[in-house]
Amino acid sequence: MRTIKIGLLGLGNIGTGTYKVLEMNREQVEAAAGARIIIDKILEMDVAKKRDIPVKPEEFTQNPDDIFKDSEIDIVIELLGGIEPATTFMLDAMKNKKHVVTANKAAVAANFDKLMKCAEENDVVFKFEASVGGGIPIINAITTVLNANKYQEVMGIVNGTTNYILTQMTDFGLEYADVLKTAQEKGFAEADPTADVEGIDVANKLTILMYLLFGKYVKPTDIPTEGISKITKEQIEDAKSKGCKIKLLATAKNADGKLEYSVKPTLLKADHPLAGVSNEFNAIFVTGNAVGDLMFYGKGAGALPTGSAVLGDVIEIAKVIRR
Amino acid sequence: MRTIKIGLLGLGNIGTGTYKVLEMNREQVEAAAGARIIIDKILEMDVAKKRDIPVKPEEFTQNPDDIFKDSEIDIVIELLGGIEPATTFMLDAMKNKKHVVTANKAAVAANFDKLMKCAEENDVVFKFEASVGGGIPIINAITTVLNANKYQEVMGIVNGTTNYILTQMTDFGLEYADVLKTAQEKGFAEADPTADVEGIDVANKLTILMYLLFGKYVKPTDIPTEGISKITKEQIEDAKSKGCKIKLLATAKNADGKLEYSVKPTLLKADHPLAGVSNEFNAIFVTGNAVGDLMFYGKGAGALPTGSAVLGDVIEIAKVIRR
Repeated sequence: MRTIKIGLLGLGNIGTGTYKVLEMNREQVEAAAGARIIIDKILEMDVAKKRDIPVKPEEFTQNPDDIFKDSEIDIVIELLGGIEPATTFMLDAMKNKKHVVTANKAAVAANFDKLMKCAEENDVVFKFEASVGGGIPIINAITTVLNANKYQEVMGIVNGTTNYILTQMTDFGLEYADVLKTAQEKGFAEADPTADVEGIDVANKLTILMYLLFGKYVKPTDIPTEGISKITKEQIEDAKSKGCKIKLLATAKNADGKLEYSVKPTLLKADHPLAGVSNEFNAIFVTGNAVGDLMFYGKGAGALPTGSAVLGDVIEIAKVIRR
Repeated sequence: MRTIKIGLLGLGNIGTGTYKVLEMNREQVEAAAGARIIIDKILEMDVAKKRDIPVKPEEFTQNPDDIFKDSEIDIVIELLGGIEPATTFMLDAMKNKKHVVTANKAAVAANFDKLMKCAEENDVVFKFEASVGGGIPIINAITTVLNANKYQEVMGIVNGTTNYILTQMTDFGLEYADVLKTAQEKGFAEADPTADVEGIDVANKLTILMYLLFGKYVKPTDIPTEGISKITKEQIEDAKSKGCKIKLLATAKNADGKLEYSVKPTLLKADHPLAGVSNEFNAIFVTGNAVGDLMFYGKGAGALPTGSAVLGDVIEIAKVIRR
């Protein structure tokens, strides 16, 4: 059996989750990949942190070229987050003929064309299933087996933090600020929650979905974006009295050849499939002109679900390498 | 651009739908496939029927060997339904080095091993996305990007006719026999509804799901199967009073290495994601040890959604042919 070596950039929450999923399901992953999968080198500053995985000190490096210039490494997994240096690292990896997998929506959304072009020029595969919807296999579906459709519309609940806050406000009649505080205490929301609650994270994901569904690149900062920080208890109660729920939706619609898109809190009838998506769960609702309405539901974040998507991409790349 | 020629077996409802989706979305399909896609010959007795598609009389044949022995045909799409002669035709096609796509759950469930083995021996691709969940891309997901998971459980609403009947009974307090009659008049149920209402169709789909998720072949007739024909208005009301809905579920669970499975009407709490799946919609709920709970929702039947899945398989095979 061939061995496929991986260079991992970043051993934070998602990196550790990916490592754990590989340890936990090695037999399944390697059977599917048709290859032995080794995480060979890890770019990470924090070597001392306790991580509950059998990683050895000699696997760590603080020099990215130890990975990019290693001719034995086939795939680079980028899990640093943020636009830079992640984008530069991914481009460097591709220029050194490494296939690249990432979960980094900010970098993909900001530099889509550059990354895709670089992958093509260097004849390597670039995959980013985990960047939208965490463990939900939406990107694979819309770029492969659903491709006999002209896509008409997409509506997504693609941020777990804001969906958790809205669900708690709805179910328990709570104020935004109180739920946010509890969410921060429980680790469901960041200390600085801006990117989540103001819809910036959702806009990044909508950029990626629009590129794949409608072939059009719209910068995240060009998407009209409204978050949930101004939603009041009274608005939620008012929605309930109308048989509705408020959800933070990313939407894009092909209206007679013109693409309309936004990120904003939206009233949904309680019997809409997206209205039943609660707490940290995500769902993406897609309409195609042949298949009609489809919905994909699952965990949009978390170390293991995201690790599942990252390794799913690794398996697909392994099939390409083996040919 | 390379041309890929298709031989189509059967131009009934699904065959006509597949033809229509190709006509409607030809540009999209061919761009995704990287090839021109031509439906070249059609095995069909009923040449005279009006079908609202631009098929020419000379495309029809009544001799399957006109397709299997034609060296220019790359892919055979089998949409005859039923176990035979469909299985024999698919095996003959593979022996003549044709890739095969089918929507036929009965044939796949009955002859899984034989069909998979024949495809392998003849080095052709055998695909059957449309056989479970119609347009829902569940088979592709569980056999590709989700493959980093050990699957733990699957629960599916995979028959639109029975879900329509149960939804109508629940929403309008109607009796089974009355809803069935209306469904038959509207064309949502067959004149002989046995395969649907007694769970036989669902058992076929569960056989396919168990094979793919757990690597175990269980004959449909060996699955404990109970349909919905004995469900009363009173049982539905009783469920509602407990905050539940009755759904016809296919379930399989890996319980400490032992696979437990059944098809039967099941009480679901109203807030379970599957409880919100109404009328003709289908959904499959899958749990993996890394990804957690996932649900795929969409149209489980119908000419265009099923045609979408059939052509999705054609696109994936076209990529293999091009290499």
